[in-house]
Amino acid sequence: MKRILLRVAYDGTKYAGWQIQKGQTTIESVLNETISKLVGEQIQVIGSSRTDAGVHSLGTVAVFDTETRIPAEKLCFAINQWLPEDIRITESYEVASDFHPRKCESKKTYEYVICNRTIEMPTTSLYSYFYHYPLDVKKMQQAATYLVGEHDFTSFCSIGTQAKDFVRTLDGCDVVREGDYIRIRITGNGFLYNMVRIIAGTLIEIGGGKREPEEMKKILLAKDREAAGPTAPAKGLTMLGITFAKDPRK
Amino acid sequence: MKRILLRVAYDGTKYAGWQIQKGQTTIESVLNETISKLVGEQIQVIGSSRTDAGVHSLGTVAVFDTETRIPAEKLCFAINQWLPEDIRITESYEVASDFHPRKCESKKTYEYVICNRTIEMPTTSLYSYFYHYPLDVKKMQQAATYLVGEHDFTSFCSIGTQAKDFVRTLDGCDVVREGDYIRIRITGNGFLYNMVRIIAGTLIEIGGGKREPEEMKKILLAKDREAAGPTAPAKGLTMLGITFAKDPRK
Repeated sequence: MKRILLRVAYDGTKYAGWQIQKGQTTIESVLNETISKLVGEQIQVIGSSRTDAGVHSLGTVAVFDTETRIPAEKLCFAINQWLPEDIRITESYEVASDFHPRKCESKKTYEYVICNRTIEMPTTSLYSYFYHYPLDVKKMQQAATYLVGEHDFTSFCSIGTQAKDFVRTLDGCDVVREGDYIRIRITGNGFLYNMVRIIAGTLIEIGGGKREPEEMKKILLAKDREAAGPTAPAKGLTMLGITFAKDPRK
Repeated sequence: MKRILLRVAYDGTKYAGWQIQKGQTTIESVLNETISKLVGEQIQVIGSSRTDAGVHSLGTVAVFDTETRIPAEKLCFAINQWLPEDIRITESYEVASDFHPRKCESKKTYEYVICNRTIEMPTTSLYSYFYHYPLDVKKMQQAATYLVGEHDFTSFCSIGTQAKDFVRTLDGCDVVREGDYIRIRITGNGFLYNMVRIIAGTLIEIGGGKREPEEMKKILLAKDREAAGPTAPAKGLTMLGITFAKDPRK
């Protein structure tokens, strides 16, 4: 038996998110079915990051145990042959049998994209949130800096989470404009449920002048979901990737 | 009666191209039907650029004549309310009654995008051509420079065209790599049928080492479609926009 690590990229548009849900097509369910058929075993992948319906990923990590004789590095090509086109395994290799992608030190990076122009662009509508009022990126960037470091992010966590510890450390939270698009890129050691989308929703309120950048400090201290802005729509969010403090490659 | 100019952006994935074809849904047919219903007249738009099925656009120009009382600048918002989400009018204004977007001096810019990595990225698969062998961008850039200027582009025109004059002038043909993506951006005073896609297909052969950059000169001189490379797939192509030598705004 060996444990295989996969890097998984997907367009989340047509899926009910990552996690298995009865009667729904999810990234996890498609991976389990596809790999089970390929290797002829009952496969259950363990993912690094759950994403909601409509959220995309360029590099989620998933691991599974198998007795297959297909070489670990070739598994990505074999699995891709049976996956739908909107899910791709970009890399596969063997890891230690006790490696668990959620139970080890790691850094994850997410990007939230806002299409900020008068009229939406059809070619990017599935990968960005269209917001047509002007946004002040300087104010958004100033507000974002207050989030960097170790904080209790209770205010940025959707109600109904199973989390008990709300302290997380962000290494960076950058807001940049590229033409009509504003990119919010956040790296941290862990993220609460809807955390990036609530940060994006709050930054949009600040960029639009509804709140001042300094309010971000108060929102953090409030430890209350009601203090922050709305949860920005799923389709603007992409999981860019995850790196592990200790290289898991066997 | 007044003549209205529209800037049209669309995701071409679900359409049989721009031009009206019996029994097919095209950008032109959707515009005609939508605007006719809105203004209560029989509308026939005249487009600046025909694109094939799967090709996208950020700014094709279309004009039409109408007696509507809706102010010209507001028409884009009114039409967008009835258009499918993958077609957007980004701007509308009145032009001279004899303005014709194909019968005046203009510059068009197209971009062809290649996703050049080992395994395709699902989030860009509808907007780029996946090519997994390594490509040498320096060679592609060198070859591209031979295309700039006034040339007979017969070798870069698909058979069956109605064109009689094959001389066109390119102002620029640039090849740049951004991470895993190679962007070929071409500006010129006119383009023959499939010209950008055949240039892209030829540059890919050169970047992949099948031909030398200098061969581009011979291909131009051959004036023979057989001399150039294959027509690269439609989905990698996006019409970026068109500018007119004389501002058509009334």
